[in-house]
Amino acid sequence: MGSLPLDASLRPLDPEVFSGESRAVVNFLAEYYRDVEKYPVRAAELEPGLLCKLLPEAAPENGEPLEDVLEDVRRDILPGLTHWQSPSFFAYFPMNASTAGFVGEMLSVGLNVVPFVWAASPAAAELECVVVDWMGKLLGLPQRLLFSGGGGGVLQGSTCEAVVCTLAAARDRALAKLGHENIMKLAVYASDQTHVTFQKGARLVGIPPSNFRVIQTSASTGYGLTADAVRAAVNRDVADGLVPLYLCATVGTTGLGAVDPVRELGEEARRHGMWLHVDAAYAGSAAICPEFQGYLEGAELADSVSTNPHKWFLTNTDCCCLWVASPRALTSALSTDPEYLKNVGTNSTGKPAAVDFKDWQISLSRRFRAIKLWVVLRRYGAVGLRAHIHRHVTAAKWFERTVAADKRFEVVVPRKFSLVCFRLRARFPEDDTVDDLNRELLAAVNSSGRAFMTHFVVDGKFVIRLAVGGAMTEMKHVMDVWELLQGKADEVLRRYQI
Amino acid sequence: MGSLPLDASLRPLDPEVFSGESRAVVNFLAEYYRDVEKYPVRAAELEPGLLCKLLPEAAPENGEPLEDVLEDVRRDILPGLTHWQSPSFFAYFPMNASTAGFVGEMLSVGLNVVPFVWAASPAAAELECVVVDWMGKLLGLPQRLLFSGGGGGVLQGSTCEAVVCTLAAARDRALAKLGHENIMKLAVYASDQTHVTFQKGARLVGIPPSNFRVIQTSASTGYGLTADAVRAAVNRDVADGLVPLYLCATVGTTGLGAVDPVRELGEEARRHGMWLHVDAAYAGSAAICPEFQGYLEGAELADSVSTNPHKWFLTNTDCCCLWVASPRALTSALSTDPEYLKNVGTNSTGKPAAVDFKDWQISLSRRFRAIKLWVVLRRYGAVGLRAHIHRHVTAAKWFERTVAADKRFEVVVPRKFSLVCFRLRARFPEDDTVDDLNRELLAAVNSSGRAFMTHFVVDGKFVIRLAVGGAMTEMKHVMDVWELLQGKADEVLRRYQI
Repeated sequence: MGSLPLDASLRPLDPEVFSGESRAVVNFLAEYYRDVEKYPVRAAELEPGLLCKLLPEAAPENGEPLEDVLEDVRRDILPGLTHWQSPSFFAYFPMNASTAGFVGEMLSVGLNVVPFVWAASPAAAELECVVVDWMGKLLGLPQRLLFSGGGGGVLQGSTCEAVVCTLAAARDRALAKLGHENIMKLAVYASDQTHVTFQKGARLVGIPPSNFRVIQTSASTGYGLTADAVRAAVNRDVADGLVPLYLCATVGTTGLGAVDPVRELGEEARRHGMWLHVDAAYAGSAAICPEFQGYLEGAELADSVSTNPHKWFLTNTDCCCLWVASPRALTSALSTDPEYLKNVGTNSTGKPAAVDFKDWQISLSRRFRAIKLWVVLRRYGAVGLRAHIHRHVTAAKWFERTVAADKRFEVVVPRKFSLVCFRLRARFPEDDTVDDLNRELLAAVNSSGRAFMTHFVVDGKFVIRLAVGGAMTEMKHVMDVWELLQGKADEVLRRYQI
Repeated sequence: MGSLPLDASLRPLDPEVFSGESRAVVNFLAEYYRDVEKYPVRAAELEPGLLCKLLPEAAPENGEPLEDVLEDVRRDILPGLTHWQSPSFFAYFPMNASTAGFVGEMLSVGLNVVPFVWAASPAAAELECVVVDWMGKLLGLPQRLLFSGGGGGVLQGSTCEAVVCTLAAARDRALAKLGHENIMKLAVYASDQTHVTFQKGARLVGIPPSNFRVIQTSASTGYGLTADAVRAAVNRDVADGLVPLYLCATVGTTGLGAVDPVRELGEEARRHGMWLHVDAAYAGSAAICPEFQGYLEGAELADSVSTNPHKWFLTNTDCCCLWVASPRALTSALSTDPEYLKNVGTNSTGKPAAVDFKDWQISLSRRFRAIKLWVVLRRYGAVGLRAHIHRHVTAAKWFERTVAADKRFEVVVPRKFSLVCFRLRARFPEDDTVDDLNRELLAAVNSSGRAFMTHFVVDGKFVIRLAVGGAMTEMKHVMDVWELLQGKADEVLRRYQI
């Protein structure tokens, strides 16, 4: 590894130093993947502020060797991380790393171009047009959401950004007719299962919090939102003089993996002139498999659809695909210079040419995310990516079946994708200890360091979530966690014996 | 390089495959840095849509070898990129790549943890607290903006995100007293030199566009905003029943590198109860050198300050530091679950312990950017980073002096940092061809492929910008671009001979 001169002759991109140090970090990471199962999955219970105490109070005056930095990562940082790439990480939703995602990101970070306007790196902007169309076709999205059909897509960092951008587009489309002062009348709709970032986004764009409608769902529809419930809420608001603006449908909710019926909600949204956004952050990736495409059926009625390849599609963080039917609605809200700064070939028709992506997102600057998703699609192909999804769905099916067959447990809501929601059953009618029992079971599993799961609360019930989907997660890890759960359940049930 | 099985045995993080393919990409990038001067700096004039025509219409069914992917990058992508890492890239502002920034990003991408709440990866959240304090101390920021002084910082993706978050914080603080319906009364202030993303941000958070005040600046103050001008605008608005909300001061504007007087504006903002944000996106990095810290003098009157290490601080895209004096003002606007989801040690006092960074930014999910900035600070140290800044300032000084000494040229506004704004002079009084002359000069330089610069328009004048700051840019590249400019000026002036 080259040593680094620290005087005025600093050469930050010297190819020899770059190669030597990058290789050292590749080795470090390969070793990490080899050893990741040796770490407790969830970070050990640390005293908050511990790392702050370990590290110096100020940056060093003089540069330090990479070896020292990596040694500090190994000693001070790794033990304090929760290991999202552990094969026994079943919490939240997965955040997939992969070799293709990693090397795609290396290309993005190494080239370090900024495709904010087409002219600032034409091939980067165009690759983004190509790759979002590829992705849309793989998921079976309707033509009208693709560049090739007059719509178009963009790669953003997160669903929340996508929600903010589409809310702003819907808001400005409405206020152009109503006048800005009518912002107080705009109402937005989602279910009680919709991710809370929807409310954060609505608040960010200035919709009055009193106009957020959180519509109740129930077990009878698998916690999916019904068009009838939306209609009732909208009718009440319209009678009160409000203007229905935006409806968020979710395919694969965070808590339970519930699915809102896209076509029914789309028809309802059209009836009231509302923007329909379909948030398929987690489950959208599954739609590359024909058997899951049905959940997006009706998407031709959507104004926008988003999904996060950084969750379950082997594309390292961050990468969120957002497709819109009307690029002009988006750019009208987000463009900073409708005339000035136009560059060769810029057009507003959403053709896959000369797109200025700064007008499709919150920020001006942006990363070359397209090359990462493109490398993932090229390296694994549709066949490889379907195999990745199938492997986890198969494991989740096995787990669901196995839990259901154990009479101490129950599956709380039928599994649709790779998320299984289950709990220890109440042992007798009106067993008011059942939530404590499950809370203790989850704490026991997580404290063991051998797996990490998180919980949800539905209809007042504490539910344990097993989200299968890690890049390294195989059937044996799901079998192991079941064995672990059985052992811990024995212990907890013994403690609760009357 | 290992070959990849494409059946159900797909192992996306196999350490052998990971090492082999990552090394291949390291080699690819080292070769790119070695050869980057062989490419035209700005992408050749491409037919928009060219890449879309070159690439297949759909993702491949079967995975393809990495060699093929890299060959396609070399053949189809590289010629269509603008090479932001070229030492002769002088356009916009620099976007620095470096070995330390790259390997720091590799660690972030490879570990792929998501520090959205403290418990989801404690060491990642804590490293962020440490590194933003380190950075703040290096820039000489007041204690009250640091965690160690009751404030705190966060790493976001862009200035626009930082502006949106602080605008939302200011808005919600005001509306909590006034009621949401008074959103129509909120007014925001900036200069005609302030980056246009400020208006984009204000629009995003629902401030009525009719309440954006763009205050004129002039050559007499070097295009800095005066407190008198702000006071006049505020007084008019207050008389009209509006509520002054937010003032954006810029240290190093995008067009000209102008500096707004932070202390004066801070006092003015306090007088009217406005939020003061200091946007030091580009020039903030220079404040690690004592001779530039004066520009941030008065920052103790600011509610927030932001700077982008991804521009001129050797930290690959993206990384924006945002510091706030009142973390609670920020989290009140951005928190999604004031009570629910609290985790061990979460507190709201902004102590450097157990910070849930999802409540400090737009998105829930987030990247482990802290490790990247930490590696940059560790590897280069304050001494190395100051040398990096000094090298470019020295080159820009030389260029300014040289341009000023050539009687065909003029420096349009005195250089403060590493941005020089200049033009060919009018050759006689009322020379109305002077803008065309400069436009042609810039086009000739850029078309040569040997350098890339961009322009600005101030007081109706077309100005050429030379932004020095590339990681590979040395004095000789600045001398080369001056030689190139002289040659092209000769040609252009000859064409315009009467």
